[in-house]
Amino acid sequence: MIRPVKNWTTTTKVDLEMVLYGILGVDEKCQTVTVHIWVTKYWTNEFLRWNQSDFCGINEVSVPKAKLWIPEIVIQQDASNGDSIYEGPWAIVYPNGYMFTFFRQTLTFTCRFNLYKFPFDLQRCNITFVSIDTDVNSLVLGSAKNDSVLMVTSTQFMITQGEWGLKGIELVSGNITNGWRYHSTLSYIVTLERKPFLYVINFLIPLVYLLFLDLASFSISVDSGEKFGFKVTVLLSISVLLLILKDILPSTEVDLPVIANLCVAVFTLVWLSVLESMLVSFLLNLDPCCGKESKIIYMKKDIKVQKEADEENGQAKPEQSFFSLGKLGDVELLKLILEEVKAARQEAGSQKKPRCYRTVATIIDNLFFVGYLLTFAAFVVYIYVGWIDI
Amino acid sequence: MIRPVKNWTTTTKVDLEMVLYGILGVDEKCQTVTVHIWVTKYWTNEFLRWNQSDFCGINEVSVPKAKLWIPEIVIQQDASNGDSIYEGPWAIVYPNGYMFTFFRQTLTFTCRFNLYKFPFDLQRCNITFVSIDTDVNSLVLGSAKNDSVLMVTSTQFMITQGEWGLKGIELVSGNITNGWRYHSTLSYIVTLERKPFLYVINFLIPLVYLLFLDLASFSISVDSGEKFGFKVTVLLSISVLLLILKDILPSTEVDLPVIANLCVAVFTLVWLSVLESMLVSFLLNLDPCCGKESKIIYMKKDIKVQKEADEENGQAKPEQSFFSLGKLGDVELLKLILEEVKAARQEAGSQKKPRCYRTVATIIDNLFFVGYLLTFAAFVVYIYVGWIDI
Amino acid sequence: MIRPVKNWTTTTKVDLEMVLYGILGVDEKCQTVTVHIWVTKYWTNEFLRWNQSDFCGINEVSVPKAKLWIPEIVIQQDASNGDSIYEGPWAIVYPNGYMFTFFRQTLTFTCRFNLYKFPFDLQRCNITFVSIDTDVNSLVLGSAKNDSVLMVTSTQFMITQGEWGLKGIELVSGNITNGWRYHSTLSYIVTLERKPFLYVINFLIPLVYLLFLDLASFSISVDSGEKFGFKVTVLLSISVLLLILKDILPSTEVDLPVIANLCVAVFTLVWLSVLESMLVSFLLNLDPCCGKESKIIYMKKDIKVQKEADEENGQAKPEQSFFSLGKLGDVELLKLILEEVKAARQEAGSQKKPRCYRTVATIIDNLFFVGYLLTFAAFVVYIYVGWIDI
Amino acid sequence: MIRPVKNWTTTTKVDLEMVLYGILGVDEKCQTVTVHIWVTKYWTNEFLRWNQSDFCGINEVSVPKAKLWIPEIVIQQDASNGDSIYEGPWAIVYPNGYMFTFFRQTLTFTCRFNLYKFPFDLQRCNITFVSIDTDVNSLVLGSAKNDSVLMVTSTQFMITQGEWGLKGIELVSGNITNGWRYHSTLSYIVTLERKPFLYVINFLIPLVYLLFLDLASFSISVDSGEKFGFKVTVLLSISVLLLILKDILPSTEVDLPVIANLCVAVFTLVWLSVLESMLVSFLLNLDPCCGKESKIIYMKKDIKVQKEADEENGQAKPEQSFFSLGKLGDVELLKLILEEVKAARQEAGSQKKPRCYRTVATIIDNLFFVGYLLTFAAFVVYIYVGWIDI
Amino acid sequence: MIRPVKNWTTTTKVDLEMVLYGILGVDEKCQTVTVHIWVTKYWTNEFLRWNQSDFCGINEVSVPKAKLWIPEIVIQQDASNGDSIYEGPWAIVYPNGYMFTFFRQTLTFTCRFNLYKFPFDLQRCNITFVSIDTDVNSLVLGSAKNDSVLMVTSTQFMITQGEWGLKGIELVSGNITNGWRYHSTLSYIVTLERKPFLYVINFLIPLVYLLFLDLASFSISVDSGEKFGFKVTVLLSISVLLLILKDILPSTEVDLPVIANLCVAVFTLVWLSVLESMLVSFLLNLDPCCGKESKIIYMKKDIKVQKEADEENGQAKPEQSFFSLGKLGDVELLKLILEEVKAARQEAGSQKKPRCYRTVATIIDNLFFVGYLLTFAAFVVYIYVGWIDI
Repeated sequence: MIRPVKNWTTTTKVDLEMVLYGILGVDEKCQTVTVHIWVTKYWTNEFLRWNQSDFCGINEVSVPKAKLWIPEIVIQQDASNGDSIYEGPWAIVYPNGYMFTFFRQTLTFTCRFNLYKFPFDLQRCNITFVSIDTDVNSLVLGSAKNDSVLMVTSTQFMITQGEWGLKGIELVSGNITNGWRYHSTLSYIVTLERKPFLYVINFLIPLVYLLFLDLASFSISVDSGEKFGFKVTVLLSISVLLLILKDILPSTEVDLPVIANLCVAVFTLVWLSVLESMLVSFLLNLDPCCGKESKIIYMKKDIKVQKEADEENGQAKPEQSFFSLGKLGDVELLKLILEEVKAARQEAGSQKKPRCYRTVATIIDNLFFVGYLLTFAAFVVYIYVGWIDI
Repeated sequence: MIRPVKNWTTTTKVDLEMVLYGILGVDEKCQTVTVHIWVTKYWTNEFLRWNQSDFCGINEVSVPKAKLWIPEIVIQQDASNGDSIYEGPWAIVYPNGYMFTFFRQTLTFTCRFNLYKFPFDLQRCNITFVSIDTDVNSLVLGSAKNDSVLMVTSTQFMITQGEWGLKGIELVSGNITNGWRYHSTLSYIVTLERKPFLYVINFLIPLVYLLFLDLASFSISVDSGEKFGFKVTVLLSISVLLLILKDILPSTEVDLPVIANLCVAVFTLVWLSVLESMLVSFLLNLDPCCGKESKIIYMKKDIKVQKEADEENGQAKPEQSFFSLGKLGDVELLKLILEEVKAARQEAGSQKKPRCYRTVATIIDNLFFVGYLLTFAAFVVYIYVGWIDI
Repeated sequence: MIRPVKNWTTTTKVDLEMVLYGILGVDEKCQTVTVHIWVTKYWTNEFLRWNQSDFCGINEVSVPKAKLWIPEIVIQQDASNGDSIYEGPWAIVYPNGYMFTFFRQTLTFTCRFNLYKFPFDLQRCNITFVSIDTDVNSLVLGSAKNDSVLMVTSTQFMITQGEWGLKGIELVSGNITNGWRYHSTLSYIVTLERKPFLYVINFLIPLVYLLFLDLASFSISVDSGEKFGFKVTVLLSISVLLLILKDILPSTEVDLPVIANLCVAVFTLVWLSVLESMLVSFLLNLDPCCGKESKIIYMKKDIKVQKEADEENGQAKPEQSFFSLGKLGDVELLKLILEEVKAARQEAGSQKKPRCYRTVATIIDNLFFVGYLLTFAAFVVYIYVGWIDI
Repeated sequence: MIRPVKNWTTTTKVDLEMVLYGILGVDEKCQTVTVHIWVTKYWTNEFLRWNQSDFCGINEVSVPKAKLWIPEIVIQQDASNGDSIYEGPWAIVYPNGYMFTFFRQTLTFTCRFNLYKFPFDLQRCNITFVSIDTDVNSLVLGSAKNDSVLMVTSTQFMITQGEWGLKGIELVSGNITNGWRYHSTLSYIVTLERKPFLYVINFLIPLVYLLFLDLASFSISVDSGEKFGFKVTVLLSISVLLLILKDILPSTEVDLPVIANLCVAVFTLVWLSVLESMLVSFLLNLDPCCGKESKIIYMKKDIKVQKEADEENGQAKPEQSFFSLGKLGDVELLKLILEEVKAARQEAGSQKKPRCYRTVATIIDNLFFVGYLLTFAAFVVYIYVGWIDI
Repeated sequence: MIRPVKNWTTTTKVDLEMVLYGILGVDEKCQTVTVHIWVTKYWTNEFLRWNQSDFCGINEVSVPKAKLWIPEIVIQQDASNGDSIYEGPWAIVYPNGYMFTFFRQTLTFTCRFNLYKFPFDLQRCNITFVSIDTDVNSLVLGSAKNDSVLMVTSTQFMITQGEWGLKGIELVSGNITNGWRYHSTLSYIVTLERKPFLYVINFLIPLVYLLFLDLASFSISVDSGEKFGFKVTVLLSISVLLLILKDILPSTEVDLPVIANLCVAVFTLVWLSVLESMLVSFLLNLDPCCGKESKIIYMKKDIKVQKEADEENGQAKPEQSFFSLGKLGDVELLKLILEEVKAARQEAGSQKKPRCYRTVATIIDNLFFVGYLLTFAAFVVYIYVGWIDI
């Protein structure tokens, strides 16, 4: 079928009207958006005209599409399956030759996502209608309605209220070329706004809560075994969050999402804090050895005392002869008992006294805590710049 | 093919009958419902009439659809693939020109969900049949059966007994317009009721059980290391429940589900309770230092006693000369041993005596517990208002 | 095309033969079954007859379907996509006008499941062939083979050996009506038997094992911190089993599966047992206070002893003057040391002696254990009635 | 269209050539295999012949399929959707009437799997081409290439190198019958070999490692609380492996996979080992009571000693009168102190001495360990028989 | 329709132009790639020529494809469904008979992946266009654009920015044969580069962090119960990483990915380190027995001392008669008390003194640590060779 113009140089103007009925889903990994649209194409067939008065006032006629020239218009970004389009079999013609036809499509189209500000991101996706079979001299695309009317219509008809909200629709006309031929295009630039609610409660809140728990775990006594196990639990919880992130975001390197950096940074921070608490624990475990050394000192003293006692015994023997009948007298025995009891008390007490490496450990712990807090503050600034400002 | 009316101004009335055979699934994320329907279209073809007596009493004839005008009726919310419809090839015609045709469809349609009362929600979804090709003057949609008959038929034919029950079907006739043309519509408003059984046993019961466990964990002694680890376990379990929630609910912000608020609130509550137990544990860890101070006092006393003993020794020397041959006599030695044993016992006992910060910690603990209980009570009221009243 | 009968009142008998080639899957959530079937339709075309001897003995001819009337038969429960059917292009005709045609389909059909006895359930699903375009006077459906032959054929051809086994096929002929028209139907009632092996090893065995572990955990000493953590671990493991259940069963309320009741009951039982062990632990933690009181008694005794000692000292001074040169004599000192050592031993021992609340805790523990055992026994009876009897 | 033979009794021989381009996936649950195949059909059309010299030497002609009789050949096991086949529109004809046509298909076919030796299994799947419309007298299927050439071609063309390797292709010709009609068949018996690498590192290695860890956990001291928690951790890890198994294997009962038996056995073994360690722990907890009894004995002795001491005091008074001025003399006091100190030491020591039930517990532990080892050995034999021999 | 050449021996040259619009996904398990492509076919129809001046200067005409010969070109690796192609209904013809037509396809094609260097891998996939119906004498495929222009065009049009980046496109012309016929082919060799970002943060970073934690856990004191539980946690975490790996990689054995080897090696290393820490713990648990032996020695000494004391008493009695009035004198009692106190202290102290097996354990621990470090170093070299060099 031939384009229905009386003079072949006449350009046919095809007006499009796209109504967005629903946003069914967005696949960040594949970088595709699935929407439900109704498209109406309006144009004029110069040969299909009649005088209403001649035909009992008939003001519109349904004609099977198969009998007519229908402008072939495709969507450049369309990655749907072939069966996603439903086209009615009829075209409606008015007495002046103005006619229209419609189709509805569960359209899956590719869109270059910018996930830098995820989950607070806006996505601008193009749905570009292009007449690929006819060049710009034969067919020019236009819009049957202007931007604001479109936006009102779509907002009114939009049924779904899911993760994405429609922020705006813009219309841009243009041309594309494959080198020597120019094709008329009409782009609907659809701005979608993510509703971050679920990502905030499932991702950001647990992340921040875990970071706070890790910070708070510095208050747990370095001696208690709990601190260590707790930090490992926090570390594993954050690695679970990383896994969730992997299911959402594509492995792209352009415009690396702030949230990915954030996660890796928090993961590393908590990991360092586990290592640090292991170091502190190691230093504290060194101390018992130095406690043993002091014990050795006590023992030496012990032996010395024993020797002294022996010497005293030796010296004292003559004077003690009256009272002591055994080798040692009461006094010496009592002295020895006293030494023993003292030593026992000192040994028991030594486990509670400040040890050599404890101070080092405490200093490291405090320094790390300050560093932790500073990094934490740096994050807040980074996120502010990443999510709020730009 | 032309609409089969003798006078073109005659309006063709098309009666529809939709029987719901099954509710196959509901996708809360995409906001779509998949049902299995059979639709019959009834109308009159003014040119297909015969006198039964002239044709051996033939009272119905099957005519291939391809040879006839068939009203083109689409479902506005239809987001199914193109191959979801099965249409029989025949239309049945009666002698008076009354005819019908049917199709069955695994229909996936969009529906605006209100998940505020999830999982105790009712959803009202429209299935709007619209004659998009013909305006309201040419074609008017009606229903072959009234609401109550429809409901009875659907309940009778409905095969599936899954998550959703059919609460009611209403019929609403109307018009839609694209600006200058009006199209006749027939809406089936299907009310679906979720059967909450599985969500209750998988979500609400664990949530409530975990909250009770967290409440009960206040009874665990603040000294025991278990309290702390237990609360963290409860916290992580609730974060798993949050993840399940994410798989069910869309990230919408309109009519935020009560259950999401509930979950976030419980999560925060348990998190605060972990932090609180860390604070209490920290305060209790401060006490050993103050225990050390008291030890220092003992030590000072020790030294003092020693000194006194020395002084006594000094003073006592002349009188002791008869009996004591060493520096110290039995009595002094026994006194020292007594001091040592007493000190040892006091030291051991000091770890069990009321400490300075313990009182503060207990007060904080009790206050928090009361606050926890009050918040818990507030929840019960909120949920009562959210789920039961409205 | 017209039904090929010489007299329009003649009823055409269409014989069906359905062979089940495989059971590809069952979706309990959607309540659909997917099978692979081959269906052959046999009927007689009264106009397509020839004398074999006139045509070189040709005893069968392949005729393109498009040129002939083919009975339009649909499956009432069919919820497959439009592209699930493969129909050969030919119909085979015999000299007497008897002809047949076949199609194969990956049929997904809805079936009302009764999951009460899951995973030991049998499902009876109807595959109802119905001639929707022609009424019962024009077309009657029959079966080309009887039940037992069908069963043999399907068992022989059935390729898959998956989760479901074919228990039996029954044939039922009948009519359905849409109010004024009656359609002939032929139902294949397919009885499928689930092979419970995997559910037993993945669900029932872990559930029973966990219940036994929880029962056994009563043997863990009430003092040890392990009992408590162990029970929480068991509780969380059972909640994981609940999640698996959620993925398998639909959220239906009719014929609630025994296994769901079982799971919720076990979950609640273990939860109660955690709370009970917390109560017991709380009661045992009350005792140290009453231990402190006894310590205070010791201390008072201490002071009393001291006083007495002082008094004795006072009284004894004159008589002691010969031997004791310090304030206290050896004997008094030794007495005091004895008191100290005794007190110390008693203090250490007091932590092991029967305490006030311990008896209460033990009684509660034992009572709960008996209750636990009784509930457990009740379960066994319930499951026996649920799974074995009915 | 009629079969292109001059004499209708002539049998048309159709030669098939199937090239396997890739094995895209195997679904053990559904028992289906998805492959990518190219099939060429060769046959002779007796009416399409020409003399090359008469037609400028044209040696082949492309003819639209729609104009010719094309043999209708289907795959018996085919469970693909209708749109899985791509057929070229042309048939190629040679001057002697020999012609061919091809199609490519992403074929999903059912196959009876034998998973007994999973993951070291070989699967033999039939792809049976059958001419369902024409009987064996009219159409006979043959192969254009023999087995070995086919194997070479498929190996050469096979692109994918995934989980399954092609072990061999065999060709079997035969007949099937639906009772009175025989159809010629050509079966490609495809032998697929699973590459077990991933299952070994994800399933077998962790299973064996966990079993060894459980075995090694017998070395953990029965007193330490860790043994118990460790075994529970191992138990839960194995239940995770069971869940993975559930996702891979169908719930079949025929040819029960060795690996399933292995898993259940290991699970039960570890569970028994947890129960055993609870029993041992229970027996050891019984001992402190018997320790208390011995303490009571000490106490009685204590009192006895006291009494004796009193008696001795009574007896000793006259002789002690010179030295002792209080009720008790030094010696008695010292004796009492000695008793006290001894008793204290014995009490402390009693916690380390062999207790009554300890021996029983150790015997049970050792017996169980031997039983464990024996079962372990039995497994090795069972697996050897299961995986290696048959 | 016949190939539009005046002389049948003329070869028709078909030029192809493929523009890659997006890389939608890569399935490593199935070894398929899904892309979105637009393909234009250019060729000359020798019969469709006109003189522009004769036809009002018309310089291009749209002709329905159905009326013309269109070269049938398929993609050898194509494993898409039948509905993945969208073909416009028109072909554009220029006055000189040069014409073109286009189609767009969501192409899923098989590709032999080399995952050796995963996730730092490059994949080279062939998209081979082949004219399967016509031999190389009739139809030769060429490219409308050269490699570099293609690359520029694709980079310019490529919309998606997901996991894979386009590294390069090469063009290779060639022939394939099925034995006696040669077909012209045109291969686009597409080089895809994986962006490893997500795999690094989700897989490599946690793996390395866990390995470091395991290494660091050697610093935890061998006495503390924590070391052991910590290592088990690390082991389980690595087994989770193994599970993730299973979801990504196919179970292939050719070119085994470095990362899989790495994972298994790390898993085994950590497992050995758990076993080693159990061995060390077992050796340390042996020591208390040898501690008991030493206690027995003390006890023997005790008894000996007692005996000696008794003997001394026996010997000493005459000399002690003056002072001691009971059986034992003060001195002996004091001696005994001293012995007791000493023994008690030694017993308490013996738990801290170097034990027999401790040295062995420490040596094993250190040796293992060195072996661990060496293996770790070997890994670094292996990975360097695997990922960086080749």
